[in-house]
Amino acid sequence: MSEHIVTRYDDELKDVQRRIAEMGGMAERLVDLSVRALTRLDTTMANSVIADDRRLDQVQRECEELAIMIIARRQPMALDLREVIGAMRISNDLERIGDLAKNIAKRVLALDGQFQSKRFITGVEHMAELSLAQLKDVLDAYAARDVNQAFEVWRRDADIDSMYTSLFRELLTYMMEDPRNITLCTHLLFCAKNIERIGDHATNIAETVHYVVTGEALTQDRPKQDESSVTSVSYETR
Amino acid sequence: MSEHIVTRYDDELKDVQRRIAEMGGMAERLVDLSVRALTRLDTTMANSVIADDRRLDQVQRECEELAIMIIARRQPMALDLREVIGAMRISNDLERIGDLAKNIAKRVLALDGQFQSKRFITGVEHMAELSLAQLKDVLDAYAARDVNQAFEVWRRDADIDSMYTSLFRELLTYMMEDPRNITLCTHLLFCAKNIERIGDHATNIAETVHYVVTGEALTQDRPKQDESSVTSVSYETR
Repeated sequence: MSEHIVTRYDDELKDVQRRIAEMGGMAERLVDLSVRALTRLDTTMANSVIADDRRLDQVQRECEELAIMIIARRQPMALDLREVIGAMRISNDLERIGDLAKNIAKRVLALDGQFQSKRFITGVEHMAELSLAQLKDVLDAYAARDVNQAFEVWRRDADIDSMYTSLFRELLTYMMEDPRNITLCTHLLFCAKNIERIGDHATNIAETVHYVVTGEALTQDRPKQDESSVTSVSYETR
Repeated sequence: MSEHIVTRYDDELKDVQRRIAEMGGMAERLVDLSVRALTRLDTTMANSVIADDRRLDQVQRECEELAIMIIARRQPMALDLREVIGAMRISNDLERIGDLAKNIAKRVLALDGQFQSKRFITGVEHMAELSLAQLKDVLDAYAARDVNQAFEVWRRDADIDSMYTSLFRELLTYMMEDPRNITLCTHLLFCAKNIERIGDHATNIAETVHYVVTGEALTQDRPKQDESSVTSVSYETR
């Protein structure tokens, strides 16, 4: 392979990485904005999240097309192939994170004008901080190709899951206390679920970093699952 | 390219298609089983969905690896490349549909022993029938590479979305009527959301069929969005 061709291949790979970095920054920003829009019930901010998510979708498609072209034309092997496949997977997760932020933003529009109590929102806000920290950390781990940092993110996902499970119970309790809380708390439950899913995508990215660097899948079972789906709050026995 | 190589390439492509067909059948079965488990609150059936979803995940990974190997080794162009990319995308959507069926099954475990009224379930069951029909139709459209049939699926997704929006309102109303309904109806809301997402993935597959056959994206905006996220039910004014 001539040096000329090698250089162009490196350029193409760098181009993909640049887009991933761009998408990572956008995804972080959308998550942050969507949660701030929720805690302040700021519909202007929510609308900007919905609009900006389209750009993230577009970069994801470009990134995927580029990656496929690299595989077809350059036939990368081993680490190089894993880099390209990893980029495709991560761009996919970041795009989904953008969708989840958009879903939160859309619920802000539903809640416009609803009675709002700070105590309902606190738990969601706290979960969002944790998910956002996970996202930042895993993007750092990817940038540094740091398997240990990626593993730490992967391990910590259990914290978000257990926080979600207790928040699920808490919001159900508020609904039972006063039916006027039902609409708000239902939307907050869906927001919390979206935030929990953002954490899952950070975990996916951690697994991808592990695969890119080591060539092996993180085969251990995930530390813990969200248990809210097997959670009941009984009205009678509270 | 020798005939020998051409034949092997065709065999590889057929191998990918076979796996997609297998995944399609599994996804349909998991959705069907999960909804039947829900309507009967049958935990044995629910547990079998959870177990079988692992197999779907495994076939998806195999399918993705095969597709990447084909791109790297065969450098397919034009329609052939679209076939391989299409297979990767569809296997991804089918794997996600399996996850959503698994989520429904996990909620059945949560609802075990809960008071159950048939009227709460009917709406979810009806939505599930529609989503399952969409999934069957889009898999047929893919098998026949039938763009018109794919477009029909794509167009009909609006029906599921509007059904979901009215079901969302209905379930909120049941919660407000009697707080003892809250836990059950919350789980049903998440089930309904999962079913609505299954419809979205059928729509994604329809878009992929269009892309594979025509080489162009279905660029029209999707017919309608789920509007439940902007839905409120006011307790005071019912």
